[in-house]
Amino acid sequence: MSHHDRPTPEFAAAVPQPDGTPERLRRQIEFVVEVDQLKNVLRQSPLLAADRRENDAEHSWHLALMVLVLAEYADEPVDVVRVLAMVVLHDLVEIYAGDTPLYDSAAGADQEERERLAADRLFAILPDDQRDRFRALWDEFEERTSAEARFAKAMDRLQPLLLNYGNRGGTWRTPGVTEAEVLARKSVIGDASAELWDYARTLIRTGADRGWVPRADPGA
Amino acid sequence: MSHHDRPTPEFAAAVPQPDGTPERLRRQIEFVVEVDQLKNVLRQSPLLAADRRENDAEHSWHLALMVLVLAEYADEPVDVVRVLAMVVLHDLVEIYAGDTPLYDSAAGADQEERERLAADRLFAILPDDQRDRFRALWDEFEERTSAEARFAKAMDRLQPLLLNYGNRGGTWRTPGVTEAEVLARKSVIGDASAELWDYARTLIRTGADRGWVPRADPGA
Ligand SMILES: [Ca+2]
Repeated sequence: MSHHDRPTPEFAAAVPQPDGTPERLRRQIEFVVEVDQLKNVLRQSPLLAADRRENDAEHSWHLALMVLVLAEYADEPVDVVRVLAMVVLHDLVEIYAGDTPLYDSAAGADQEERERLAADRLFAILPDDQRDRFRALWDEFEERTSAEARFAKAMDRLQPLLLNYGNRGGTWRTPGVTEAEVLARKSVIGDASAELWDYARTLIRTGADRGWVPRADPGA
Repeated sequence: MSHHDRPTPEFAAAVPQPDGTPERLRRQIEFVVEVDQLKNVLRQSPLLAADRRENDAEHSWHLALMVLVLAEYADEPVDVVRVLAMVVLHDLVEIYAGDTPLYDSAAGADQEERERLAADRLFAILPDDQRDRFRALWDEFEERTSAEARFAKAMDRLQPLLLNYGNRGGTWRTPGVTEAEVLARKSVIGDASAELWDYARTLIRTGADRGWVPRADPGA
């Protein structure tokens, strides 16, 4: 198997790996180095614990923690290691494609294409077998074609809800966002867990009761 | 089972969960909210991708990613889901106990006791069964009593090595640190994987060759 057609990615190339590093390990380490950039991709949501926006690496860690705590609420049996792998990997494409805010429909339009190209580029750093395995996990997550993917996606939708609720609004205060739109964007939680969707709806309704998310668009 | 003796932790109590949230779920969500503070615990290591120090949440995510990429190098078979759980949980105690830098022997002296008390307090937020399961995983990681724990610890030691190497020094430049001390502190990698320990030693030796870590303490 030749890897000569796939050069070291630009970021990881800044400090080359030592001579004599076995080829397979070199590619794997270059991937591990390249993805350090996920810590630099900022999301819209402010943290609970500090007055700054969350980054994708922190967010992905929080989802993994949530999987460990909340997996028992999955309506269908899930293989936890696959759910964990999906949440750890799910945002890596944003290193090249950037974060697309949930409530930004314009940016959402070409998001799929941008992220697909980013996935081609990023996962190609890995040895072929891992490239294919990671890409398949990411595709599965995006397409929600398994119980694991549905549960991983539910965590991805529930976590910012917890941040918004704990921040008494957060990105719920984005102009134009309404309770109905939040409910619509979050309804995929119900495809994974009736109990967590019940809880999520209670959070959103309580937020609306308290004026943290508008019942209707005041500009409409 | 009564939970009335265990109140909502202070941080999570700032915005109480909605009335009617089932008791078990309420405790789990309070834990998920409480641990948002891990994003605020700063480590010594600077990131590769930005000119700032890494936080524990980002670090924990990076370890999880490394487990997915590098598990094949474990010398003994490992149950990947248990390794992932350990790296996701391993630094949570630092929310209450703070980060203890690897090259700070004074802070290291009472570290064990402080972290044990922090674990008592933090994991008690969870329902009893999860409290016991998470605590057992953390104890196992700390004591390195299984192949999973040894591999998780190896990732925890290898990751900052990658950051230091990529930063042409990083915390290797802490006064008093020498190549021999770095080798000693990192040798646990060899308990998990001969191949990764071989690679780690090459990184350290290359760092010393290039003057990123002193061969001997210039003050000695
Ligand atoms: Ca630590």
